[in-house]
Amino acid sequence: MNSQRPNLPTNTTEFIGTAVLDTIGLLIPNIDPALQAHTGYDPRYRSLGVFSSRTGAAGQIMAVDEAVKATNCEILTIELPRDTKGWGGHGNYIVLGSESVSDVRRAIEISLELTNVNAGELYISQAGHLEFAYSARAGAALAQAFDVPYGQPFGFICGSPAAIGLVIADTAVKASHVEIVKYMTPNIGTSHSNEVIIAVTGDASSVKEAVITARETGLQLLNSMGSIAESPTGIPYL
Amino acid sequence: MNSQRPNLPTNTTEFIGTAVLDTIGLLIPNIDPALQAHTGYDPRYRSLGVFSSRTGAAGQIMAVDEAVKATNCEILTIELPRDTKGWGGHGNYIVLGSESVSDVRRAIEISLELTNVNAGELYISQAGHLEFAYSARAGAALAQAFDVPYGQPFGFICGSPAAIGLVIADTAVKASHVEIVKYMTPNIGTSHSNEVIIAVTGDASSVKEAVITARETGLQLLNSMGSIAESPTGIPYL
Amino acid sequence: MNSQRPNLPTNTTEFIGTAVLDTIGLLIPNIDPALQAHTGYDPRYRSLGVFSSRTGAAGQIMAVDEAVKATNCEILTIELPRDTKGWGGHGNYIVLGSESVSDVRRAIEISLELTNVNAGELYISQAGHLEFAYSARAGAALAQAFDVPYGQPFGFICGSPAAIGLVIADTAVKASHVEIVKYMTPNIGTSHSNEVIIAVTGDASSVKEAVITARETGLQLLNSMGSIAESPTGIPYL
Repeated sequence: MNSQRPNLPTNTTEFIGTAVLDTIGLLIPNIDPALQAHTGYDPRYRSLGVFSSRTGAAGQIMAVDEAVKATNCEILTIELPRDTKGWGGHGNYIVLGSESVSDVRRAIEISLELTNVNAGELYISQAGHLEFAYSARAGAALAQAFDVPYGQPFGFICGSPAAIGLVIADTAVKASHVEIVKYMTPNIGTSHSNEVIIAVTGDASSVKEAVITARETGLQLLNSMGSIAESPTGIPYL
Repeated sequence: MNSQRPNLPTNTTEFIGTAVLDTIGLLIPNIDPALQAHTGYDPRYRSLGVFSSRTGAAGQIMAVDEAVKATNCEILTIELPRDTKGWGGHGNYIVLGSESVSDVRRAIEISLELTNVNAGELYISQAGHLEFAYSARAGAALAQAFDVPYGQPFGFICGSPAAIGLVIADTAVKASHVEIVKYMTPNIGTSHSNEVIIAVTGDASSVKEAVITARETGLQLLNSMGSIAESPTGIPYL
Repeated sequence: MNSQRPNLPTNTTEFIGTAVLDTIGLLIPNIDPALQAHTGYDPRYRSLGVFSSRTGAAGQIMAVDEAVKATNCEILTIELPRDTKGWGGHGNYIVLGSESVSDVRRAIEISLELTNVNAGELYISQAGHLEFAYSARAGAALAQAFDVPYGQPFGFICGSPAAIGLVIADTAVKASHVEIVKYMTPNIGTSHSNEVIIAVTGDASSVKEAVITARETGLQLLNSMGSIAESPTGIPYL
C-alpha cells in the first residue's frame, strides 16, 4: 500500500489515514446541516469520523469498538456492504460522532491501527475466506453489530463458502461451552453474502477456545478446496 | 482443482468432497442442539448435509434435487448468496437434513457428482454469464427454489447482464409452448444479481426446446460483447 | 471491445449494440404476452428496449434520460443490481417501452452512444471508484431513479469505499448552494453496495460546481489509497 496524504481544504474534511483491506479513515470536523438532516444522525454530534473498508467486518468493528472505549465518541452507524473485492463477504462502513473533533480524530487513528492488527485473523484463498475475532470485553460497536452483551467476551466465527461457516460454527459450539448470540446466513442478517456467521459469548477462555477450534477446522476445510488461505498481514493475533 | 482431504475430528464433522465452481460438500452427523435452535431447522433431522458453491445456482439445485430423490433426506434451506466470484450472479448454500447419517452422506456425494455434470450448461465470458438447466421431473429442491410443480418438467433460463436474460426469456417462450412459473430480475426474487431468470414447465420436449433455443440466442448475444463464453467443464449436457 | 453483431431471428429480437462498461442494448419488437404478464409492464408497450451494464449507474441512467426525451418511449423499470465486476458498486438494468419499434430502437441507440460519453466521469482504481454526473435538465429517468424534480438540474456524487462518498457529499454541499434530493448508503437505497451517494438539485451553475468540487476531493482521497483512479474512456465531460 503506497498511501499518499492528499492536500485537502482543512475547513471541510481531514484525511486521517489508510490501513490494510482497502480501509480509509476520514474526519468531517463539522458536518453540513443539510447533509446531517439526511443522515438521521443525532445532531449533537457535529464532528464525524468516517471509516470504511472494501474487505472485512468483524476485525474492523472490533477495532472501532476499542476506539470508542478509548475516546468520547458515539457509534452512529455500522453498515455491512456486500463487498470483499470479488470474494463472498462484506466490507464495512462505520460513522462515529462526537462533539469533539480531537476525540473523533483519535478514534479513527486507533481504528486504523487496530484494523492492521485484527486483519491477522482474516484468511483468504482463491476459493473463499474465513474471519475470526475475539475480544475479552465487548463495547458499544460489538454490542450493536452482533448483539453480544456489553462488557462480555465476544467471539466471531465466519466461513465462506457458507457451508464451511455452518460446519465450523457447529465444531466451535461442540468444543467449548459458549452461547450463540448472533446467527447469520446468506438470507439472514447478511447483505446476501456467501457466509455463515456466528457470534458467541461466555467465559473468556471458553470463547477463545471456540474461536481457535473453529479456525483450525476452517483452515483445513478451506484449504481442501485447492488453494492455501493466507491472511493479509501474516500475523495472527490469536 | 487440487483437492486435499482434511484430517478432521470424526465426531464433529465430515468432509465429503469438492466439485467445480468452488463447491464443497460437508456432513454434520449430529448438529449441536444450541446451533440447531438458531437455525430453525426441524429438530428431527440431526444429521445435516451442507453444500455450497461460490458460483452457480440452478445446476447445483438440480444436482441436489436428484440427490434428494435418491435418498431419504429433506431440504432444510436453499439460499442464493450474491456471489459468482466477481461475476453478476449467485452462488448457493443448501442444507439437507435426515435422521440417517448415511443418507445425508450419499445425498452430498450425489450432489457433488451431478454439480460437475450440470456445470456444463453454465457459460462464462469476460462480460457476463448464462446458465441453463433442464430436468424431466422436478423434485423437492426445484419445486422449492423455482415454484415448478412437483414431478413436472423443469427448464431454467438465466442471462447476465440482465438485458440478455429478458431477451432470451422472450425468445424461449416464443419458440416453444411452455408456461413461466418463476420470473426473477435484479429487484425481484434475486439477491440483487445482474440477471433476468425464468423457470418454465410444460411437456418435456417443449421445455427442452425452450431451453435450447434460449441457449443459442444467449450465446450469440453474450459473445457479441467481445469475448467468448465457455463452460467450466466444456461438456454441455443438453 | 471487439463487438460482433450476432445473427438473430429478426421476428423475435434485435441486437442494437454494445458500449463501454459491458453494456448491451437489445430490442424486443413484440414481447410475448405470457412473459409480458410476468413483467407487470403496461401492456400497451409491446416493443421493449432492453439495456444493461455490468458497471455504472448514473451515467447510463442519464444516457437513457436523454434517449427518452428524444423519442416516444416510456421507462418501464430501472433496477440497480449489485455488480461492477468485483468493485463495490452497481450495474444497471433498464427497460423502455413504446408502441413504436423504431422509437425503441432509436432510444437504445442514443443510450449506447451517451453511455460512452458519460463513462468519462466514472473513475476506478484498485481500491475503489467514484461516479459523477450532471444534467442541466432532468427527464423521466433521472426523476424516477433519483427523485430529482422533472426539468431541474441534476447532480450525482458517488464514492466507494463508502467513507469517501460521505466526505465528498459534505464537501459538495458546503462548497455550493444545492439541495440534496436523494441520500443512499450500503443500507439505504442501494443494493448493499459499498457507496455513499447523493443526488442534488438547484440552479445549474451551483449543481455543476458541487459535482466538480466533489470530484476534486474524491480523486484526491481515492488516489491516497495507493493506486490512481482512471476513467474507462479517459475523456471527462465536466
